[in-house]
Order: sequence, then C-alpha cells, then structure tokens
Amino acid sequence: MAAVIRVCLIGAGRAGKVHARTLTQYLPNGKLVALVDPVAETLAATGSEFGVDQRFETLETALAWGEFDAVIITTPTFTHQVLAVMAAEGGKHIFCEKPMALTLAECDAIIAACERNGVLLQLGFMRRFDPDFAAAYERIQAGEIGQPMLIKSLTHGPGLPPAWARDLRTSNGMLAEVNSHDWDCTRWLMGSNPGRVYVETANFKGAAHQIDTPNFYDNVLVNIRFDNGALGSISGVCPCEYGYDARVEIIGERGIMQIGDIQGQAVIVGTNRAQGYVTPIYRTWPERFAWAYIREITHFIASIQHGTLPAVSGQDGRWAVAGVLAGTKSFLEARPVRLSEILDAAGQPVDAAKGQ
Amino acid sequence: MAAVIRVCLIGAGRAGKVHARTLTQYLPNGKLVALVDPVAETLAATGSEFGVDQRFETLETALAWGEFDAVIITTPTFTHQVLAVMAAEGGKHIFCEKPMALTLAECDAIIAACERNGVLLQLGFMRRFDPDFAAAYERIQAGEIGQPMLIKSLTHGPGLPPAWARDLRTSNGMLAEVNSHDWDCTRWLMGSNPGRVYVETANFKGAAHQIDTPNFYDNVLVNIRFDNGALGSISGVCPCEYGYDARVEIIGERGIMQIGDIQGQAVIVGTNRAQGYVTPIYRTWPERFAWAYIREITHFIASIQHGTLPAVSGQDGRWAVAGVLAGTKSFLEARPVRLSEILDAAGQPVDAAKGQ
Amino acid sequence: MAAVIRVCLIGAGRAGKVHARTLTQYLPNGKLVALVDPVAETLAATGSEFGVDQRFETLETALAWGEFDAVIITTPTFTHQVLAVMAAEGGKHIFCEKPMALTLAECDAIIAACERNGVLLQLGFMRRFDPDFAAAYERIQAGEIGQPMLIKSLTHGPGLPPAWARDLRTSNGMLAEVNSHDWDCTRWLMGSNPGRVYVETANFKGAAHQIDTPNFYDNVLVNIRFDNGALGSISGVCPCEYGYDARVEIIGERGIMQIGDIQGQAVIVGTNRAQGYVTPIYRTWPERFAWAYIREITHFIASIQHGTLPAVSGQDGRWAVAGVLAGTKSFLEARPVRLSEILDAAGQPVDAAKGQ
Amino acid sequence: MAAVIRVCLIGAGRAGKVHARTLTQYLPNGKLVALVDPVAETLAATGSEFGVDQRFETLETALAWGEFDAVIITTPTFTHQVLAVMAAEGGKHIFCEKPMALTLAECDAIIAACERNGVLLQLGFMRRFDPDFAAAYERIQAGEIGQPMLIKSLTHGPGLPPAWARDLRTSNGMLAEVNSHDWDCTRWLMGSNPGRVYVETANFKGAAHQIDTPNFYDNVLVNIRFDNGALGSISGVCPCEYGYDARVEIIGERGIMQIGDIQGQAVIVGTNRAQGYVTPIYRTWPERFAWAYIREITHFIASIQHGTLPAVSGQDGRWAVAGVLAGTKSFLEARPVRLSEILDAAGQPVDAAKGQ
Repeated sequence: MAAVIRVCLIGAGRAGKVHARTLTQYLPNGKLVALVDPVAETLAATGSEFGVDQRFETLETALAWGEFDAVIITTPTFTHQVLAVMAAEGGKHIFCEKPMALTLAECDAIIAACERNGVLLQLGFMRRFDPDFAAAYERIQAGEIGQPMLIKSLTHGPGLPPAWARDLRTSNGMLAEVNSHDWDCTRWLMGSNPGRVYVETANFKGAAHQIDTPNFYDNVLVNIRFDNGALGSISGVCPCEYGYDARVEIIGERGIMQIGDIQGQAVIVGTNRAQGYVTPIYRTWPERFAWAYIREITHFIASIQHGTLPAVSGQDGRWAVAGVLAGTKSFLEARPVRLSEILDAAGQPVDAAKGQ
Repeated sequence: MAAVIRVCLIGAGRAGKVHARTLTQYLPNGKLVALVDPVAETLAATGSEFGVDQRFETLETALAWGEFDAVIITTPTFTHQVLAVMAAEGGKHIFCEKPMALTLAECDAIIAACERNGVLLQLGFMRRFDPDFAAAYERIQAGEIGQPMLIKSLTHGPGLPPAWARDLRTSNGMLAEVNSHDWDCTRWLMGSNPGRVYVETANFKGAAHQIDTPNFYDNVLVNIRFDNGALGSISGVCPCEYGYDARVEIIGERGIMQIGDIQGQAVIVGTNRAQGYVTPIYRTWPERFAWAYIREITHFIASIQHGTLPAVSGQDGRWAVAGVLAGTKSFLEARPVRLSEILDAAGQPVDAAKGQ
Repeated sequence: MAAVIRVCLIGAGRAGKVHARTLTQYLPNGKLVALVDPVAETLAATGSEFGVDQRFETLETALAWGEFDAVIITTPTFTHQVLAVMAAEGGKHIFCEKPMALTLAECDAIIAACERNGVLLQLGFMRRFDPDFAAAYERIQAGEIGQPMLIKSLTHGPGLPPAWARDLRTSNGMLAEVNSHDWDCTRWLMGSNPGRVYVETANFKGAAHQIDTPNFYDNVLVNIRFDNGALGSISGVCPCEYGYDARVEIIGERGIMQIGDIQGQAVIVGTNRAQGYVTPIYRTWPERFAWAYIREITHFIASIQHGTLPAVSGQDGRWAVAGVLAGTKSFLEARPVRLSEILDAAGQPVDAAKGQ
Repeated sequence: MAAVIRVCLIGAGRAGKVHARTLTQYLPNGKLVALVDPVAETLAATGSEFGVDQRFETLETALAWGEFDAVIITTPTFTHQVLAVMAAEGGKHIFCEKPMALTLAECDAIIAACERNGVLLQLGFMRRFDPDFAAAYERIQAGEIGQPMLIKSLTHGPGLPPAWARDLRTSNGMLAEVNSHDWDCTRWLMGSNPGRVYVETANFKGAAHQIDTPNFYDNVLVNIRFDNGALGSISGVCPCEYGYDARVEIIGERGIMQIGDIQGQAVIVGTNRAQGYVTPIYRTWPERFAWAYIREITHFIASIQHGTLPAVSGQDGRWAVAGVLAGTKSFLEARPVRLSEILDAAGQPVDAAKGQ
C-alpha cells in the first residue's frame, strides 16, 4: 500500500480548488503533485496558491511526465470523456466530477477504458459523503421510515451558470449541471432506478440576462416514477438569488424524513420587531458540503490505497446522465419519457440500483 | 343588518362539528339553529353536544321549517350539487365544503342557482384564512419575493379516507378529497390558473388494507405549468401515518418563502442522547388549522351581514375541480393534460385568476 | 348553574380590552355587562368598541347598580387591594391581574375578603393555560424528564413600562410588573417554593429615556434556590426592542425540556444571501398568549358556573409577590435573601406548592 | 519560518486524541512527533493509533530527547503548572487545555515562565474558534445588537466527570472542569471582566452514584455582574444525560443573539404521530466542536510559525480561574463574592478585558 497517493488535478478553477484544498490541507495520504489547465493565468494562480510546481497546459504533457497515481477531473463536462479515457489509458485512477459526460456512449467509453486498464473510477456525487445524507441513508436502510414511497430533492443555486453550461448545444443544461446530484440522490436513497420521467421548465430571467439560447430555462420541475412504483420530484432553480439550497424530503410507509436545512450557521439575531429574526443561510456549495468534499476525496484515496471499489461508480454516473437525457427529451417533446427509450438506444446498463 | 345569522348545518359528522364549535363557541354573530343528517345517531349526538334542538333527516324538511339564513354543507362531495341547489332555491346563503362537486357541470349548476336566487356562496378553502397563509399571500402581493416562479404544496394526512372518497366511481379520489386545498392554494398564491398538468400515482398500502378499488392510489405527485409560465408541484400522501402535514414552498425571482411547519407545539423534550430530541407534530387538520376554521366562518357570517362577496368564490371551487379532473385524466392516460381539454368540454369559466 | 355569567371589567385599558374581547367574542357563557374606568375617554372608547352601555367611573357606583356576578380587575397594581376587597364585600367573584398586590398584607386582605364572602378568586397567570405551558406541565408531572433540577424562565418585553410600574415607590418594579409570570411559572413547574433568592440588576437605557427614578433597572437576573434543592433563574429585560419573549428551559434528572419559542409565525422568507432568512417574531403578549387569555377566562367563568376552585389561587398570587419582595430586597442589599425573611414578617402562608 | 512545527502531546487520553487527530489528519504544518503519558497502556494505544514512535512516560525524558518545538498539555488540571513551567524552561511553545490551573499563583507561574523563556502560550478555549461563536463575536463587535446587556451561557455534559474533577480537594469542580468555557466566553463576548459573582449549587445524583465527596454538586447556577454593569448567567449540569449542550444567548441594547443549538444533524424523522418528530442532538463535545478543535490548533501552529501572539492568552486562562475561585467561594460562603477579593490576594492581573 502506497503511503501517499500522488494526484494530478485537471481543471484548476473553482471546483478544482475545492479538491486542491482537501488534498493539501486535510488529507495526509494524498498529495497534489501536478496541475493541468489550458488557461495560463488560472494554472499559475492555483499552482501558486497550493504550492504545486508541476503545471501543464494539457493532460498529454502531464502524462508524459507521469509522476502521479491518480487524476481528479473538474473540467467542463464536454471534455470529460477524452480526458478520462486518456488518463485511464495512462494507467491513472480517476475521480471525475459530475455530470459524468454528455451521452451514455461517452459514459460507456469511460467505464470501458477504466475496466480495460484496471484503474478505479469514482464519480463526484459528494452528497453521499455528507454526514446528514450518509446518516439518512443508513437510517432508511435500517427501515426507520419503512419502504420509501415518495421523494423530493432540490438543488437551487445562487449564480447564473457559465454560458456553455446553460446551452443545450454544449451541455445538458441545468438538469445536468445543477441537478445531477438530485438524479443520483433520489435513485440512491430510494433504492430503485427511475423508469419514467416528465419535466416542465420555465424561463423567468433569461431576458433580463440577455440570454437568447434556444430552450434556455432557469426553473425545472421533474416528476419521476421509479421502477419499484415509488414517486419522485426534482426541482432546479438557478439563479435563485437567496442562497445555495440542497434538501431532500422522503415519505416512507412508516413516516417522514427530512435531510438538510437552509440554516447555514447557528447564530440567530433579532433586532427588528416588525420584521422578525434573521438566521444565516448557506451561501455556496463549498460551504454547505464542506465535510462531504473532504470525505469523498478521502474515500477515493483510501480506495486506491486498499484496491477497493469506490462507493460511487461509473454506473452511478451513467444513470444520472440517463435521467438527464430522458428529462430533456421530456420537456422538449412535452410528454413523459421512459428511461428505456434512452437506455435502449445505448444498450442496457447493469441492473442493480447501486451500481457495479 | 341582522344582528345574528342563523345557520343550518348539513352534515353532522367530523367536519360539521368543527364548524358547529365555531358557531357555538367563537362566533357571537352566528347561531347554529338546526342540523341536518340522515344518520339518526349522528344527528342526535351532535345535536345534543351543541344544544341544537331543531334536527332534520333531510334538507327538505329543514327548509319546510325554514327559520335560518344560511347553510353550511359538510356532506360527502357527491351530495353537494343537489343540496346546494336546493338551499339556493330556498333562498339560503351557502358555505360549501371542498371539493365543490364532482364535475364542472355540477359546479356550474350550483353557481347558477346561487346567482339566480341572489344568495352568497363561499367555498371551504380555509387555508386562505390561516394566519400563516394569509400573511404569506399579503407578502407575495407586496412583492417581497418578486414574481413567483415555482411553488410546491403538499397535503399528507394520517388516516385512510372513507371508501367513497378513495374510489374514482364515487369521488375524484385523493386528488380531490385531500389535495383540493393544494389546487386552490397554488392558484391563489401564484396568481395564475393552471394550464397543463401531469400526474403520477402510486399504491403502496392498498393491499395491506384489502383495497381492490380500481385505480386506487395512496401517493400522488402533480406537475403543473401555470398559464403565466410558472411551475408547480402538489403531493398527496394518505394515509401518511406520521401526522397531518400541510406546507407550501415558493421560489420567486427574488427569493424563497416557506409557509407552514410540521411543528405542532413549542415544547421540545430530549431524554435520549442516542436518538435526539422530540418535537410535537400536528396530528390532525382541526388542530393545524384551528384559527383558519374559526376565521373562515367568521368571514362567511360577516359577508352575509354586510352583503359583500365572500373572498373564496364558486369559481375558485370550480377551478380546483377542473385541476382535479385534468390531473385524474393525466394519470389514467399517462400523458400531460391541458386544462383547456377539461374546460372546453364544459364551456369556458371566467378568466380572472382570482375568481369572480 | 347560571347559563351566562355577567362580568364587570374594572380597568378599560390594554389588558382590560384583551379580556373584553374574550368575553364578547369567544365566550358564550360569559357576558361583559359593565365597565369601570376613571378616565372618561377610555371608558367611552372601550364601552363603544365592545357595545357595553353600563359604564362607571368607580367600582362603588357599579356595585350600587350591581347587575353582575363577577369582576375582572386589570387596573394598576397599587389599586388591587381596595378594589378586590370592595368587590368581594359586594359578593362578586374576582379575577385579578398580576401582580396580585404590593405587599403580602394586601394579598392577605384580598384572600381573607374572598373567603369571608364566599367568592372565588383567580389570579391572572395565563401562562398556565397556554397550550405549550399546559402540555409541558402535564409531561413533567408524568415524569418524562424526571425530577426537575434546574429551570430558567424569561420575560423580555418590547416597550418601556409606564412610569408607575418602573418606580419602586409606586410598584415593585419590573420584577413584579414583567416577571410575575416567571415567579409563578418556576414555582408551578418545579413543584417547589422558592427558598432563597439573589438578584442583580442593570440600568442601560434609563439615561436615554430621561429616567432618574431611584433604583431604576431595565435588566434583572434572579438566582433561586427552591425548598427542594432545585435551582432556578429568571431574567427580565424591558424594553428589549426585539419582540415579546417568554420562554422556559428545564433540566430534569432524565433530560431537557424547552417551552415556547420566539417564532411568531410559520412563514420564512429569504431574499438576501449575505444576511440569511427571516422568521417573524412574537411582537406582543396578546399575540403570544392569544389562546391562553381565552382559556384562562373560560376557566374562570366555568369555575363560577360549577362552583369549583380556580386552578390559580390567591396563594399563588401571594407567592409571586413574596418572591418579588425577596428579590427586590436582595438587589437593594446586595445579598441573598431567604423567603422566610419576607414570609415571617407577614405570617406563614400555606405550605403546599400548588396553592390552596 | 519552519515548514512544519513538531509537537509533543502530553496526555494521551480522550482530549489528547482529539488534538492528535487534528495534527495527523488536518494540519500539514504541524506534526505529532512525540507522546508523553505515565500510563503505559494509554501511551502504547495512542502511539499506535497515530503512528507516533517517540513515547515517553515523563516530560523530563521527552525534553531530554528534545526534538520538538511545542507541547500540547491535556493532562488533569492539577498537573498543568509543573508541566507547563517545565516545558517553558525547555524552550517549548505551549498549548494548555482548560482550566489553566488550580490557583492564580499557578497561573502566574506559568505566564511568567513563558515570558521568561520567550515561548508562546495558548489556552484551550476552542469555542472562540467555533464558526458560530467566532461569527457571533464579529457581529457583536460590529454593533449589530448594540451594547450587550445580559448574557446566558451554559455547558451541560452527558457523563459523570472523573473522581478528581468533581472533588474540590483535587480540582475546582464542575465550575472549572465543565464551565471554564462559559467563564471565558461570557467575558470575551461581553467585552468586560466579571466584577461580582453569586453561585448556587445542587446535588441531585450524588447519592445514586455513591458520591460522598464534600460539597459535591451536579447542578450550578452563576449570577455575574460585569465591571461595565452588564449581567451574566452560567449554568452547569453534569451529568445531564440528554446530550452535550453548549449555547449562549445575549440581549443587547438593540436586540437578541442566540449562539449554538442542540440540533446535532440536519436529519429529521417522524414516525409517531402521538409523539412527534425526532431531531438528532449533539452527543459529545468533540462532535459539537469538531471545526473549533481543528481551528484552534491550526491557529496555535500558525502563531508559532509567524511568531505572533495567540488570540487566547494566559491572562484569559487566568481570568477564567479567577471566576471559578470567586464562584466557589460564593457557594461555600453563601454570599456574593467580588472578583477583587480573589485578585487582591494574588496581585492585580492586567486590566484589559481581552488579555495581554
């Protein structure tokens, strides 16, 4: 077992820096040894901030150097397949941010490359490592609320996504870039795959932001029927202005469970009798999921050290992509879409709800 | 202006007794003078409990006596049209519980009879009179959260509805009997009519309760597109076991608003370190909406005294029925249903989102 | 049993109007038939608002008329003894607001007059009738948190008390006028009499309000040792600006109990990511204890009708006065004061923790 | 600036292991290089758990080896002075757990030794580094609630302290071992030194635990008058059974602030309508203050690297001891005790409320 796993971070932007911080600050078993980013300024700034001297404009040059065990991919979604396959071919273990890729074919290519080269693949569904979500999952498994019947999951984010991420020609839009976590969480917590989805979207702020992208939406509401007959709802709102909001509510045969809260800090202040008292709200996702981001990378590094499969697999990433594709088809065609329509086109995935 | 409005209560069961209590305990301007119920035992028990001597098996006989100004109808939905029209023809003002009726034609018959006879008609959407909901409505109107973009409304109830109320052959099922309030609240708070709905249902407990009613469901999830482009979700779970739950969450262009809570009492007890602390939950709808039930009847009586239109109209009741019918059609046909499909069949209702 | 108890309200100001509303709106068994107030304008305004034609400047003249069964006394504390004794001598049942009186001798005179004339006496400790407090009491009695060891009770109010109420020459100050409820609640919930008290006070806002009253304070902190060895704390802050705040926390041998909350309404709004979300706070005591005020008068009227002793007795009122007197002596002399020092001077009260 | 600060941990028990985890897991700038513990088994177990090979039975032998820059002292209070002075004489920087020592003379000896040898001294008041408490402090400083007038701070812990820690012959009892944090927090947040204290204690569970230690108490309630006229309350309950509870409430001239909460996790479950819903509670202090423990050691290491004074000084530790001594004298003598009585006996401390 290697004492320290050396990591090359691909993508030195905001999400990348969250993982860079984990590796340099909170993870003695992992070491950030190299950075890849095509933008020179980003590369220099992040390299300097985290004291990483090995800096590369491309993954090819980083692989040519090669003194690392694993990569963490935090680049835009449309680059994932090429980078992940290249890293796998280079024999590097892969931590890949969500969404996994744009299509099921891309997902399949990544999964196949990892299997072919015997490297591990973990998807960036950090909510599974959040103390709240993880405890909730255990309690559901233990039967505390009985068989889950209905789940509602939401992700509302404060800021406008970058142009590529809200354009269906370069991404799968908010359903993928913002709500990937909800697609994964609902399937994980319910223990069943989505079978049919129906989606409505709305565009309230596009005009104010001079966005004329076709089919742009800033609100989305998903209705899911799971294979086991249970129901699910996902909502996405971005930008929502009021904070970063990620919560789940589940009704089981025996009761209700709520996971997460908007309260961002246990400090309450009241100074205005007519208005009320004020409680801090979560402002950003790194703030809300601080421990989850640390724990998911800790898990990835430990999986490499012990040669065990990560708890969040390529199949999990693929299922989230499948949900997104079905959902997008639904609102574009204004009809419910069966997951089988999406999956059949790509060949059946593995059956198990929980991945490999 | 009559000093005291005399009321005949039609339906002396659970919902009827809630109103009977308001009239006898909390409303000096209203007086419960007569009861109508076909079940002799119920009639006797409720009459005795509230000290009402005038007791009738039928509305006909009550009208023959005739010493009252208004009726409150709390009987099963399928009886509403006949009773309401008869009361209107008798010149009595009408407070009618939700759902208003089974079909739009029935709704229209009631509305027409009331107009023809110059009597007032108020629907039993008491949430509009709840201090929380009423304050929330005012704050939305004042623009506090900007233009509402997305609403989620839920009603989960603890007990199994009676057989007639869960059978699509004798009622419109849970969507109507439990979720009528959500249909009304979402339209009222969003200030827009529903334009298209999609519904999924699930049946988790039917077998355990030996229910073989066709199309029975105990979980329902509605996806709504409003005419103004906003989105909405309604969930219904019955029986949900854990309490009586009625909450709304709205995302507007400027922020979030949550209305209602599951906390039923401000007493918290912690005695088990491994488990946590325990907070009372609302157990029943009379408990959750205690003030709302008092305030809606107060409003009805005051409307009669002052000859003003009640704030919740027959059109509001008709819209809730239209949503239910569209929703039921949706899950039976597994497709989104436009409200116009329902409304066209019945003739267009008035346009305004807020009723007459 | 009289069908309706006729009540004369003595004191037509703010507190009086709360009870007037209960009698006219929420209590069919009670009827407000007369008002007494020496201020002509107040008398006319309140009389008009509640439709009471019998209006008197003095209790003497009201008694000369005499067509009522009971009085509710809501005048300033220093008038209680004379009015209560006079009403008792006139054979009227008495509901007396807190504080009962200025001295134990005055309390004794009231109690004796009531006993001598066979009239009932109830003190205005409405918290005992609040649904939260009442449920908490029952759960403590049932042993849910075990033997109570430590209690903290607070009353913080938004507005500056009137001049007479903050001057130790005309009242017992905030400890009495604001914190009487805490003296009663701690003794009631702990099931033990206070044995020794120590009090610190502070004056932060007197100068800004041009108050040069000797010994004026706007913050007070009481430390209590109960006769059974348990501990207690009372805090008073007035004016506190931020709302009306009345909460209790109890630690028992088996756990913790919290009673009450500052949340005044179940509507939460978040529109400012940097600040957080805003929850309404209780603004006033009539708002916080709306049901308690209704239920205590309902209890008083029912006690008269059934000839049973009210649950809150003159002895309860006397104990609160004793605590106040010991507390005031404590901060004036900067030392702990035993209740026996106060009680001995007045003759021993009855022993039982819960009054008569 | 040294890249890595080498630390010797003195005391390999529960508190020591919390810091050992920070050093090995979350602090790349700090390295745990040696352990001191007189108990062979503890030494071996903790050494093995954290991979520390240098293990010593005494500080003398560790100092003889000497390959470290700083010590963290987590041994029982009565050993602090000897160990801290010895470490200072050996030129090691010192992080010392609370309470600082048993007497002001011991505190002075530690402070003097650190000054004489030019080593830094930080006290273990980790609440100052908790995100909630730190944010609250900043907001008070910014004037959000105006001038603080009244503070309540509590520490209630689930388990019975060890025998030495509850015996006034070998410690200063719960007031010191449990409530040291409250003595520090109240002074820090109020920005004023305590001037007079009054304390009541209670013993409810001693008999059940066969504790016959003189003056044993398991409940304590402190009343404080600060030098600036503000008021304060501290409560201690141990064992409290229900969880680990550390909260503060402050009333300022402009409003209220609450810091901390009993909620230990954002997962709520309701399955029992009659009982309510259940929320996890904080069970232990390492759980409640997870980030605070990481951040205080991070601060200590950074202070050494940058040669800056730690934010929590020896004077802060000494003030907490002074409060404890005054409080203990108060309940033993049943009277309020001025801090000057304690401080005069020891020579005046520095004036500033916020330490050196």
